[in-house]
Amino acid sequence: MCLIMESDEHNSDGDVLAPPFNFSMVEDGIYRSGFPRPDNFTFLKTLNLRSIIYLCPEPYPEENLKFLEANNIKLFQFGIEGKTDPPTPMPKDTILDALKVLVDVRNHPILIHCNRGKHRTGCLVGCLRKVQSWCLSSVLEEYQKNAGIKWRQMDLNFIEAFDTVSLRKCLLSIMYRYHGKRRRLAYEEENVQTPKPQAAKV
Amino acid sequence: MCLIMESDEHNSDGDVLAPPFNFSMVEDGIYRSGFPRPDNFTFLKTLNLRSIIYLCPEPYPEENLKFLEANNIKLFQFGIEGKTDPPTPMPKDTILDALKVLVDVRNHPILIHCNRGKHRTGCLVGCLRKVQSWCLSSVLEEYQKNAGIKWRQMDLNFIEAFDTVSLRKCLLSIMYRYHGKRRRLAYEEENVQTPKPQAAKV
Repeated sequence: MCLIMESDEHNSDGDVLAPPFNFSMVEDGIYRSGFPRPDNFTFLKTLNLRSIIYLCPEPYPEENLKFLEANNIKLFQFGIEGKTDPPTPMPKDTILDALKVLVDVRNHPILIHCNRGKHRTGCLVGCLRKVQSWCLSSVLEEYQKNAGIKWRQMDLNFIEAFDTVSLRKCLLSIMYRYHGKRRRLAYEEENVQTPKPQAAKV
Repeated sequence: MCLIMESDEHNSDGDVLAPPFNFSMVEDGIYRSGFPRPDNFTFLKTLNLRSIIYLCPEPYPEENLKFLEANNIKLFQFGIEGKTDPPTPMPKDTILDALKVLVDVRNHPILIHCNRGKHRTGCLVGCLRKVQSWCLSSVLEEYQKNAGIKWRQMDLNFIEAFDTVSLRKCLLSIMYRYHGKRRRLAYEEENVQTPKPQAAKV
């Protein structure tokens, strides 16, 4: 995002910018937050988003859809239930699917959000950190910082149990292909299902 | 930072990476954390840091200095006292000096840290957010998320009172100068004091 807004550029009215609730930057090109409201749209424009990962089952609000359309932002929805009674565990396969979208740099800059940016978003980011080889204590610390007093033991257990060993290799082969010393993105969804032996898979 | 560590590249032992306590990304090229310990050095290398802003008055530990030297990282120290009795307010001029280093993109990627990454670091990042035109509630929310239960009302007051109106213009003129449509970095400390009208400075 632009480090400093210039008064003659994006912010001509001297407006203040309102990031969504619980906003923060995860990585270059990856952001997380709570549910963006219309008064966050001016701020969101400064991120030049290409995609949004939305982790709730509820339909996306009409005004948010309009904002996405106007700014050419692609929506990836993965419907994960919020608080349920009795509590249900985070769906591993859905998180895995979301992770595949998240690490595909062609979708960056990307914003992950659920409702409060705490549990569902926190679990997805936690799994990303494991893929990145962060040690578990740092992964859980980050989860807890963003969840505050609302942190859930069940989420910590989910993140800890999430298996990334095979996933990491899979993701790397999905994301990149080597041509001699040159590394380039070579992801094609259809090729994932028909891997060719000896050839780098995509 | 590298989104995914490759097993044959940086992380050949399959080591996990340990970010410093209370680590997070602030902006492209700007990170914040608590005090980095030697077991965080492998992680810090992945950030390709050019500089560190250190906000404590205590001398920098010998092993940290060695890490900086080995990785060609410049240290900017601004000695701000931690918890004092009676409490002393955050020194505005020191924060201002640190802010000037922080926004100079020639120092990026840059890590800001104090001891716990909560109060001194939180105030500096809070002032940066004001320079970026973030609305006050979002600035304070971010401060509190990183300070947790240790948040201090005095810090919130400091961030709120910190004046950025004149500073923003000053920083922009320091950082950039336009040559026709091309924007380029044109910072020179001495020139700030003797600006020449119409001339681009370097």
